Amino acid sequence: MTRMRTEIGEQPEALRRTLDCLLPRMSDVGLVARGTRQVLFIARGSSDNAAVYGRYLIESEAGRLATLAAPSIATAYRTKLDLSGVLAVAISQSGATEEIIETLDWAAGCGARTVAVTNAARSPLAELAEVALITEAGEELAVPATKTYTTQLAAVAVLALGLGADLDQAELRRVPDELARLVEETEASPALPAIVEELARVPGMVVSGRGLAFGTALELALKLKEACYLQAMGLSYADLLHGPIAVVDAETPALLVAADEGPTLPGTVELARRVTGAGARAYGIGGGLADVCSYTLPGPRLPEWVAPLGLIVPGQLVTESLARALGIDPDVPRGLRKVTQTR
Amino acid sequence: MTRMRTEIGEQPEALRRTLDCLLPRMSDVGLVARGTRQVLFIARGSSDNAAVYGRYLIESEAGRLATLAAPSIATAYRTKLDLSGVLAVAISQSGATEEIIETLDWAAGCGARTVAVTNAARSPLAELAEVALITEAGEELAVPATKTYTTQLAAVAVLALGLGADLDQAELRRVPDELARLVEETEASPALPAIVEELARVPGMVVSGRGLAFGTALELALKLKEACYLQAMGLSYADLLHGPIAVVDAETPALLVAADEGPTLPGTVELARRVTGAGARAYGIGGGLADVCSYTLPGPRLPEWVAPLGLIVPGQLVTESLARALGIDPDVPRGLRKVTQTR
Repeated sequence: MTRMRTEIGEQPEALRRTLDCLLPRMSDVGLVARGTRQVLFIARGSSDNAAVYGRYLIESEAGRLATLAAPSIATAYRTKLDLSGVLAVAISQSGATEEIIETLDWAAGCGARTVAVTNAARSPLAELAEVALITEAGEELAVPATKTYTTQLAAVAVLALGLGADLDQAELRRVPDELARLVEETEASPALPAIVEELARVPGMVVSGRGLAFGTALELALKLKEACYLQAMGLSYADLLHGPIAVVDAETPALLVAADEGPTLPGTVELARRVTGAGARAYGIGGGLADVCSYTLPGPRLPEWVAPLGLIVPGQLVTESLARALGIDPDVPRGLRKVTQTR
Repeated sequence: MTRMRTEIGEQPEALRRTLDCLLPRMSDVGLVARGTRQVLFIARGSSDNAAVYGRYLIESEAGRLATLAAPSIATAYRTKLDLSGVLAVAISQSGATEEIIETLDWAAGCGARTVAVTNAARSPLAELAEVALITEAGEELAVPATKTYTTQLAAVAVLALGLGADLDQAELRRVPDELARLVEETEASPALPAIVEELARVPGMVVSGRGLAFGTALELALKLKEACYLQAMGLSYADLLHGPIAVVDAETPALLVAADEGPTLPGTVELARRVTGAGARAYGIGGGLADVCSYTLPGPRLPEWVAPLGLIVPGQLVTESLARALGIDPDVPRGLRKVTQTR
């Protein structure tokens, strides 16, 4: 078994530990956020995709503007902005990526309050932030992030609760069991080998989702790029229709993700119809897409706001399985290291 | 001559007209922005890429936080946010895309002050906004945006000046002549047919730039997707190193864009070296990349802050020429209409 597959299976336990540690810290979030009106995420790579989930969750459920920072403003242009009233939230698995540390430090210097989400309690990032939300994923050895990503999503969900989102914690508590079921159900599904066999023959594809599921599409596209060397484009439904839809033809399939409920499901169903109508293959993750896709993997039975914690899991299994089918060791893709240094 | 090629050549005149109309309106921008502290762009497609230029320009030169809105918060989730102190800037060529109109209307209802950047003076978007900055591109018939995109960049530059950016207007005034020179120089360059010939043989590629040039990379990737059906991934330097660098191999070339000066040039040069070091082809737009790329097209001789208005031009010519080499009519790519309706 690859290390990546083992770590996919460790997610229920990692999430249970993370929620046990972080749910009691909601009040710390409320305290540091006092007097702030908006959130600014600072992240790269998989952590950036967790931030995209965070921006939609916080805007849709906590009623605050939440956007993503451009780190080069801090690290390359070195411009000072007025960030009073801003809660800067840096997300980094290692807590050691210089660019992220430097940008959070810049945000603090510009007047922002600061939170870190990291898997390393003794990291420079955790020490720098006023509040550190430590994910309890344990050590992750495979280069493609799996359990560190889903535990980041859990930390972001706790952040939203701490910011006053009127959501039921019990729904978040259901996630670990649901993830265990999803791993089992995905591996038993005949759709998994069918999708892998077809994807092994294409050079590129489109991955799409919308709203709360948009970050999942970006993360899945990143996984397929880094572990399968596939030219996978992660796009929202609307962005896809503004141009890139031209790329979709018989040789360019689309992989779509959607929660079983929520206002973005109808648009994703419509997109699947449009893709298959153009003669391309459409694969789905999420039961709501079963009728309109060539093959569909089961999604989580969770409310839309926590669905992204489960929606990525069938995608992780597709990635791991496809990498092996292509003769790639997903644990150590070419050109990548576990901690990426960019400045 | 294709309609797209004609419209590429019309850019100097379109920009001259646009600057003549908009530079005198800087004070209107200052007035509507009074009491605001940050900018929130609302856009899709090419207009979204103009917004990316806007965010870097306004943050680096006007000292204000500038980020991009997630339209589905307005149109799908229908959440109310507190946007007092926010200047919402909607960018849409047609001024008729429902999603953009609805999102700007939502922003106003949430307390934001509003600006529209559009090419249609009598459009619903222009009527809705408190200040409408009308670009004078004239009618654009080819589906891939060219002159409507560069005139949007000019409008965004005027916006930054209106917000107090300490920049020399005369440098913006130099852009039209510089664009005319660039079209000529690019078409005379032996690198143009050489790059087109090589790109005609690949299914996908990476397009990368950083900071103020990041929007150019995104726009060029969009052009190559919509008019050449190429799986082109637009990525910043840092995002590329966080995973997608694995995709770059001998069959996946990278096209890099950089102004001749500025703090992000060294990183782009380093990236070109890394790409060619991985056995892939690197093509450059911008003289600073000439020594490190397989082929390089000339870039604009302009300061970094206005360079994006010229940097895209050689890329537009690559796109138009490549489409024809592939037997595609760039004026009417499959699956696309001039006004995209998304909700």
